[in-house]
Amino acid sequence: MDVKLKRPLNELDATEIVSKIAVGEVTCEAVVRDCIARIEAREGVVKAWVNFDQKRALDQARALDRAPARGPLHGVPIGLKDTIDTCDMPTEMGSPTYRGNRPRSDAACVALLRRAGALILGKTATCEFAGSAPPETTNPHNVAHTPGGSSSGSAAAVADHMVPAALGTQTGGSILRPSSFCAIFGYKPTYNTINTMGTWPAACSIDTIGWLARSIDDIEMLTAVLRMQAPQPPRPLSRVPRIGVWRTDLWNTAQPETKAAVEEAATKLGKAGATVRDIELPDAFTGLHIVARSTIGFYERAACMASAWDNQREMLSPQMRRYIENGHKISRDEYVAGLRRLDECRALLSGVFAKFDVLLAPCVPGEAPKGLDATGDPSMQAIWTALHTPTMTLPTHRGPNNLPVGIQLVAQRYDDDHLFACARWIWQKIGMPEMVGVRRSR
Amino acid sequence: MDVKLKRPLNELDATEIVSKIAVGEVTCEAVVRDCIARIEAREGVVKAWVNFDQKRALDQARALDRAPARGPLHGVPIGLKDTIDTCDMPTEMGSPTYRGNRPRSDAACVALLRRAGALILGKTATCEFAGSAPPETTNPHNVAHTPGGSSSGSAAAVADHMVPAALGTQTGGSILRPSSFCAIFGYKPTYNTINTMGTWPAACSIDTIGWLARSIDDIEMLTAVLRMQAPQPPRPLSRVPRIGVWRTDLWNTAQPETKAAVEEAATKLGKAGATVRDIELPDAFTGLHIVARSTIGFYERAACMASAWDNQREMLSPQMRRYIENGHKISRDEYVAGLRRLDECRALLSGVFAKFDVLLAPCVPGEAPKGLDATGDPSMQAIWTALHTPTMTLPTHRGPNNLPVGIQLVAQRYDDDHLFACARWIWQKIGMPEMVGVRRSR
Repeated sequence: MDVKLKRPLNELDATEIVSKIAVGEVTCEAVVRDCIARIEAREGVVKAWVNFDQKRALDQARALDRAPARGPLHGVPIGLKDTIDTCDMPTEMGSPTYRGNRPRSDAACVALLRRAGALILGKTATCEFAGSAPPETTNPHNVAHTPGGSSSGSAAAVADHMVPAALGTQTGGSILRPSSFCAIFGYKPTYNTINTMGTWPAACSIDTIGWLARSIDDIEMLTAVLRMQAPQPPRPLSRVPRIGVWRTDLWNTAQPETKAAVEEAATKLGKAGATVRDIELPDAFTGLHIVARSTIGFYERAACMASAWDNQREMLSPQMRRYIENGHKISRDEYVAGLRRLDECRALLSGVFAKFDVLLAPCVPGEAPKGLDATGDPSMQAIWTALHTPTMTLPTHRGPNNLPVGIQLVAQRYDDDHLFACARWIWQKIGMPEMVGVRRSR
Repeated sequence: MDVKLKRPLNELDATEIVSKIAVGEVTCEAVVRDCIARIEAREGVVKAWVNFDQKRALDQARALDRAPARGPLHGVPIGLKDTIDTCDMPTEMGSPTYRGNRPRSDAACVALLRRAGALILGKTATCEFAGSAPPETTNPHNVAHTPGGSSSGSAAAVADHMVPAALGTQTGGSILRPSSFCAIFGYKPTYNTINTMGTWPAACSIDTIGWLARSIDDIEMLTAVLRMQAPQPPRPLSRVPRIGVWRTDLWNTAQPETKAAVEEAATKLGKAGATVRDIELPDAFTGLHIVARSTIGFYERAACMASAWDNQREMLSPQMRRYIENGHKISRDEYVAGLRRLDECRALLSGVFAKFDVLLAPCVPGEAPKGLDATGDPSMQAIWTALHTPTMTLPTHRGPNNLPVGIQLVAQRYDDDHLFACARWIWQKIGMPEMVGVRRSR
């Protein structure tokens, strides 16, 4: 067989792994071996994993190969952000305060993945407590640049073909930003529709679990399992999507590559037959990223971190201490006003989504910034996290340094399935499959 | 001194303890000693505590007495439902699956209480995982009757004057029902306004932490601390409250004592000068208790319990297994329809609360049922938990067996302070202080 034609199994999508294992074309062990080989080759520079045990992974793979198919993800390796509890590996929250922490139970999402036959390959690096102090992880497209965060390791591992998909969490922009920076698909579900039991709370009223993966099909299949649903074949749209382009009040902060990504996507989608219209949202939406990040984010962070602040302050990063100090300065009245304002905006979105299937919006200010000391600006993602809407980023563009820049799609709350269908239509019209993840280097 | 005139310190409210400690009239140690004496006298029949260590409590009390005042709750003993994490005592969730569990960190609410100088007296008995399989706790008004649940021990301990106040959690009716059954005040805040980090999730989209106490002033002071606010003096209402009486579609299931409680309260409040009007809510509110308990409650319970279901099923109670099986039968579409319906009803409540300050509603079907095998029906409380509104129960009435029956007050989301003010006005007009808690037996 021509070696060049044989794709390493670590490059398969989760849906492909499922099909190939089902017909006996590959084994789970073979897939895991190729993932391990990729990790061995690249982890020294990418630094995506904080807990990865080859032997445990291979033992589990062999056990799955021996067993009858357990569920719809039988044999699929998954990475888990290290803020998600696992009973068989440490869960360290990216913080020395949780070093060696062994949760009593798997998080709900982990238990549901295992029930479906998935294999937990390991824990991926996270910013401290899903905040902003970064791990050592690099951007696999250019290791001098941040991969984004706080789901840094999940994004880098998936982009670098170490694992087909990984779970992350988003409170500001911790799934979509690293996905956009690393050229993969990122999905943040409607708030409170994927169970968060056993995941670290950064800000309870907005925390959401979601997926980082290399295909929309994968995200849809994996999400079904977390919903306790049987995965369904993708449903096509019954008509072309109506797309509202909202540039947001952050447009002036966007770099040329982000502006180009949104404008080009809008133009191409219009040419492809979609109804594309520019929209402006009411004044209540102005400055919403500040409500999301500061008023809600800092205030709730200060509460979540109360024990660490009082007992282990010296073990917290300067970034985290600043967050908490900021939280202490927010009055209860400001906080409640922020919650009310978000409610008001959610109500206003009903009118918007009566006219549009999805909104197209900027996802990140631009390419991943150079340096590993910070993970980039979450403002453009944080608006939607706080509004509880489902969002996705698609890896559609590149910037001046040939680093990825994704676009962001937003749907109405609970319309996650419709978001998938629209995203698939849009990807078919403007996506370039060779853009996804790092250039394949064999 | 006439012994009869000296109230045991365990009968003091939290606000009284704070004042007396502040002026040096009592010590924290003296308060704790009287709480311990009461527990020693009564715990054999009440069975409110699952973790209570006299020595630790006294050591902490002495340390607080030696220290400068740490915060607004300096020296106040608090009980904690055993689904709330404590780093210095086990947190066992009322389940053998969590026997000996030692959380890595205090829950946010616990850390904030300690920061304010409160003393964690111990952990109170809970239904298994804040569900329905009851602990051994009895109703201190009549030990042949349930105290209600799932915050069973918190309600019984407060009603029996073992501790002035205790934290509970409510997903269906786990704070208000036991409070109503035990003749104390129960308060469930607006959803997501008191940080839930470190509390067991029964159903993430509705779980709420709240207080069980013997006065409205206590609840207001204690709540301020969880909000990271300085406690404020109670603010009186600027005008008489407008009270809507909604009997709910469960009215026919109410026993005479509950009907009498609501009707008498409405009549008395009208005579006291309040604007009292009967209201009907739109059809969307019909059967909402089923959406709350079954659609949302069972579905999310099944997700939260995924790990235990797959790995420790034989250690779960028959009640819990039935809950989870019921959850598995609810389709994703039903679940999402339930979430949408709750959203719709929340929007409709804006119109209702434009006309009324509070709603007066039945709290429980009637007196606490006889027997300790079940904790009573949560339907009347669960409606409001699912709607995310703040609610309180006031210990206003007694039934045919001389057991307590409270009324329920409901305010608009985020209007918790207004609920306190209305509740205080209402209590001043119709409350009987001698009704609160068990008859004092000295």
